[in-house]
Amino acid sequence: MRIAVDLLGGDRAPDVVLDGALAALEGDPELHLVLAGPPSLRPRWDAVADRVTLLPTDEGVGMSDAPVRAVRTRRTSVRLAVEAVRSGAADAVISVGPTGAAVAAAVTELGKLPGFRRPALAAVLPALAHPVVLVDVGAHAGASDADLVRHGRLGSAFARVTLGLDAPRVGLLSVGTEPGKGDQLRKKADRALSGGDLHYVGLVEGYDVPLGGRADVVVTDGFTGNVVLKTLEGSLALAGTSVAPAAHGRVHRRAATLLGVQGIVVLGHGAAGSDDVADCIALAAAAVRDDDAARLRAVLENPGDALPDPAKMAALAAPGEKARS
Amino acid sequence: MRIAVDLLGGDRAPDVVLDGALAALEGDPELHLVLAGPPSLRPRWDAVADRVTLLPTDEGVGMSDAPVRAVRTRRTSVRLAVEAVRSGAADAVISVGPTGAAVAAAVTELGKLPGFRRPALAAVLPALAHPVVLVDVGAHAGASDADLVRHGRLGSAFARVTLGLDAPRVGLLSVGTEPGKGDQLRKKADRALSGGDLHYVGLVEGYDVPLGGRADVVVTDGFTGNVVLKTLEGSLALAGTSVAPAAHGRVHRRAATLLGVQGIVVLGHGAAGSDDVADCIALAAAAVRDDDAARLRAVLENPGDALPDPAKMAALAAPGEKARS
Repeated sequence: MRIAVDLLGGDRAPDVVLDGALAALEGDPELHLVLAGPPSLRPRWDAVADRVTLLPTDEGVGMSDAPVRAVRTRRTSVRLAVEAVRSGAADAVISVGPTGAAVAAAVTELGKLPGFRRPALAAVLPALAHPVVLVDVGAHAGASDADLVRHGRLGSAFARVTLGLDAPRVGLLSVGTEPGKGDQLRKKADRALSGGDLHYVGLVEGYDVPLGGRADVVVTDGFTGNVVLKTLEGSLALAGTSVAPAAHGRVHRRAATLLGVQGIVVLGHGAAGSDDVADCIALAAAAVRDDDAARLRAVLENPGDALPDPAKMAALAAPGEKARS
Repeated sequence: MRIAVDLLGGDRAPDVVLDGALAALEGDPELHLVLAGPPSLRPRWDAVADRVTLLPTDEGVGMSDAPVRAVRTRRTSVRLAVEAVRSGAADAVISVGPTGAAVAAAVTELGKLPGFRRPALAAVLPALAHPVVLVDVGAHAGASDADLVRHGRLGSAFARVTLGLDAPRVGLLSVGTEPGKGDQLRKKADRALSGGDLHYVGLVEGYDVPLGGRADVVVTDGFTGNVVLKTLEGSLALAGTSVAPAAHGRVHRRAATLLGVQGIVVLGHGAAGSDDVADCIALAAAAVRDDDAARLRAVLENPGDALPDPAKMAALAAPGEKARS
């Protein structure tokens, strides 16, 4: 289990990222880390040097850098970390740096899945009734109606693979549940999804993301999804509660999986603390352990087939989740 | 104080709406209600018949009706209620029916404020640091960059009038705070707002709606605003908390004020309970009492002038709000 880590991404990089990486190593004896970052930090992992590989670089992507250009023209830490997956030196990669840079690196180095024009970020949220996959939470700031349909396919396949659902209910986020509610983009996507192969349940609303009950997968454009995720996070802080856990099993409010690329890429947000970094690594390790990438491809290529290895699916179900038929 | 009420709007109309209206009458001895709805309900207000005027109609706007057509072609309850404001029979109107119908009725019957192409719905939310005005929460499902600038002007004037702020900080909702974050619409609107007269603080994120601290007014398109409001509401339900009150003074999570039309129009959502209806009426009554409509026009026409009647402003400040300089 070798996870590549972008040490120079994130508001408090590299220290907090390294703290999280070392905590993850402590928590998982099978873990090996491929750290892309400054060689000057090497003394900090002296005690576990046999479990760490360094990809040395001092170049990060700043918040003011144009992400695609930064990734293409410089040996940035995020690019080296993603390259490690392509070369086979790592099984998955995590970053809490700028999303645009990580997405650009993933597309450039790993390539897209056939038929998917744009990757999408999926978060598996601990909603009230059951986990909800929200997709896209910000891989791209916009989407076309065809993109939204593809987000639905990716999100549905992801829910099958990570939550063990046979036919995840897919909803399209809008401003009401009656057909026709929403802007032109939603109207078009609603029609396209209605005529497709997914278990599409129609339009859903903002409530349905934190509460669940109506859909297992909520599809939206990356602008709206990002705003929704941060509103949810801020609202729980406003309520001053930890009743809704940030993470259990595959369910995680603060780490998202990039779908539509050839490999396992887990992203957290820039304000991530060391706990969040450790959680990103644990999520990536779980995805590698369960062979998510291959199973996701299989489900996308043959959506009618039974899910590969359903026994494993049952074992994955997090305790305390509401059973649904 | 005469408030018109659309009895036939809302998922549980007319009973729950009438319950709320009668509760509001009990709570405010100065209140008189102009009820647009079925004459068959008259026995229910027998005891307070001298404080109620009926505008008889049995026609509501269904969720499947095209709202604009319904309002223009039929004597619907929402249209009669708005007409009462135009004719002077009422000082303000409230509805928890379909937003599209209420907006269409307000535009048709009351007219728009000069210079404002599209009305916008503003909610004054009880955020952690201080109240936050979120605009538009769903008057229209889309917006142009020029619309977003106008939403900023309306929201800023509304924050001055209702929250007593001298120079409300206006932020534009996006996916990050660095300039350039977001889609094309946000990039254009960010540039336009930066060059304008408002106290514009730049881009804000989803967190900043429930938490406050960064902006007093958060500007967004009606699609995103509606989704954000419902996500916030659902998240607080997920947290199972009432720590953040739904309402105090002018601050209200479940009632929104329609800005940009000639008159006071307060809208709630279709799932409103009788408490919510009573709160909408109380909010409308407070706006009438404080002459919000005239003060809003004055502030929009002469943004450089001091706020009319600042003594009243001080009295309006809700207790317990954090003071800011």
